[in-house]
Amino acid sequence: MILAFYSANRGLGAWEPALRQAMPEVELRAAPDLGDLEEIDAALVWRPPPGWLAALPNLKLILSQGAGVDHILTDPLRPRHVPIVRLVDPYMTRSMVEYVTFQVLRLHLKEPEFRRQQQDHVWRQLVPPSARDRRIGILGLGELGAACAAALVALGFDVAGWSRSPKQLPCVTSFAGEAAFDAFLARTDILVCLIPLTAATRGILGRATFDRLPRGASVINAGRGGHLAEADLLAALARGQIAEAVLDVFETEPLPADHAFWDHPRIVVTPHVAALTNPVTAAEAIAANLRRLAAGEDFPDRIDPDAGY
Amino acid sequence: MILAFYSANRGLGAWEPALRQAMPEVELRAAPDLGDLEEIDAALVWRPPPGWLAALPNLKLILSQGAGVDHILTDPLRPRHVPIVRLVDPYMTRSMVEYVTFQVLRLHLKEPEFRRQQQDHVWRQLVPPSARDRRIGILGLGELGAACAAALVALGFDVAGWSRSPKQLPCVTSFAGEAAFDAFLARTDILVCLIPLTAATRGILGRATFDRLPRGASVINAGRGGHLAEADLLAALARGQIAEAVLDVFETEPLPADHAFWDHPRIVVTPHVAALTNPVTAAEAIAANLRRLAAGEDFPDRIDPDAGY
Repeated sequence: MILAFYSANRGLGAWEPALRQAMPEVELRAAPDLGDLEEIDAALVWRPPPGWLAALPNLKLILSQGAGVDHILTDPLRPRHVPIVRLVDPYMTRSMVEYVTFQVLRLHLKEPEFRRQQQDHVWRQLVPPSARDRRIGILGLGELGAACAAALVALGFDVAGWSRSPKQLPCVTSFAGEAAFDAFLARTDILVCLIPLTAATRGILGRATFDRLPRGASVINAGRGGHLAEADLLAALARGQIAEAVLDVFETEPLPADHAFWDHPRIVVTPHVAALTNPVTAAEAIAANLRRLAAGEDFPDRIDPDAGY
Repeated sequence: MILAFYSANRGLGAWEPALRQAMPEVELRAAPDLGDLEEIDAALVWRPPPGWLAALPNLKLILSQGAGVDHILTDPLRPRHVPIVRLVDPYMTRSMVEYVTFQVLRLHLKEPEFRRQQQDHVWRQLVPPSARDRRIGILGLGELGAACAAALVALGFDVAGWSRSPKQLPCVTSFAGEAAFDAFLARTDILVCLIPLTAATRGILGRATFDRLPRGASVINAGRGGHLAEADLLAALARGQIAEAVLDVFETEPLPADHAFWDHPRIVVTPHVAALTNPVTAAEAIAANLRRLAAGEDFPDRIDPDAGY
């Protein structure tokens, strides 16, 4: 079994020892030193250039280095017959749960206001509502969204989620499909975006969505930069429709040094760290999928290219 | 039954409707309009002036308006034979759990560093350790400390607590007594102070404690201002022994506008809001204790004046 490696923003680095330890039987070849392309069985990729996958004639499996697969599906030349498997790693899930729990608590507990008060040396006690009166809305109830919902339920928040198909999650109100989107937004004080980026969800964090939230709602984007219409957010913040935004992902990463988000007093910028892939833990999931390939088994985390996730 | 009310920093305000609703049978008298002092059965107080309680000759119960009773025990003239009951209110406990969870996640997820990076328009991915490799140490495992410990355990942190007597809490390592204090500190990355303020714990957040933490540890004080030796904290931050501090309570409140803490880049100041007393929910606990008094029953939340909590 031969695995090809490509990443648009990091080298093999920490992946190499992690993969070798998890699957000593697999030969690892990092781009551009791929040798005979006909020998490559599987590819582990992050944002491969268009055509890179198509150049591997005997490819039998495409593995994403992240939870999302949008960076693969945007390649118009990708081989349609090859299964694509996203990365599901309990470490990444826990990392996302920590990030979302933290940012929701930040907004719930009025941290941005307390921070501004500290800058002004102002001592004023602001009282947040009870968690049960704070309505959290999660866009996307997949692996990550469901785990975040459970953590927020445990803290006592009023949690709902929106997804394509209805979901049964303990204490989480499920809204499903286009028809339920407005009702979902109307009851959401803090909107958390964890939905896959597809043609249908590109720009979902835009004016139409912001206007349907209660005035003064806040937004957390831990999905993809492509979900956010950046100019719409700045306009919604300017007119007070959106009170605060926390953004971990951006259309252009790294976020350009002259971007308006950096200095905006009501935007928190983090550098795409909500759920960083950890090669040590990810290698276990990758090795398991390569063993499934060798055994001719199906892949539980295989995505549906038509749905986009 | 007649209840006298005194607060050093707020009027009867929201207390009045809350108490009248929870206990319509009780007559409420707010200082200074107490009428015949001999008629007063019980007192609901926050930081009463020395001698105020002693002036009530038939006082049978002292109720604290907060979780702590240090503000009562510091009165040298208080009547020694009258039971003192602290306020235990699930709302306050949940509020403290939210605050501590938030501030621990803030330090764990390197928010202060990301905030400084945002100010400087710097995109740099910092990777925190897994929660299971982050050692949280809670000073005080009473009502509030135990609830915070449970929430942090649920998020996967490595949680220990220090208290006078050993505690049995699921997945929380218990250190008890003076002899175990150094070992507790040596394994603590983030120290959370939730211990009652007594003669024994005054100044416990001081140089000797800071020096026994691993270099670069952080401190959260949600106890009392008297726990912290302010100059020692500034010195420990200056030499890097302590990396960050989050302070909700202060020796002088409101924190004076010219205090060094406000502008310190490694100190977060919040205005004593971690667990604000909510009269609406607190009134239920107070009414229950007055019913116990009328029935001649004991008080589950009665404190031991010799222990100080």
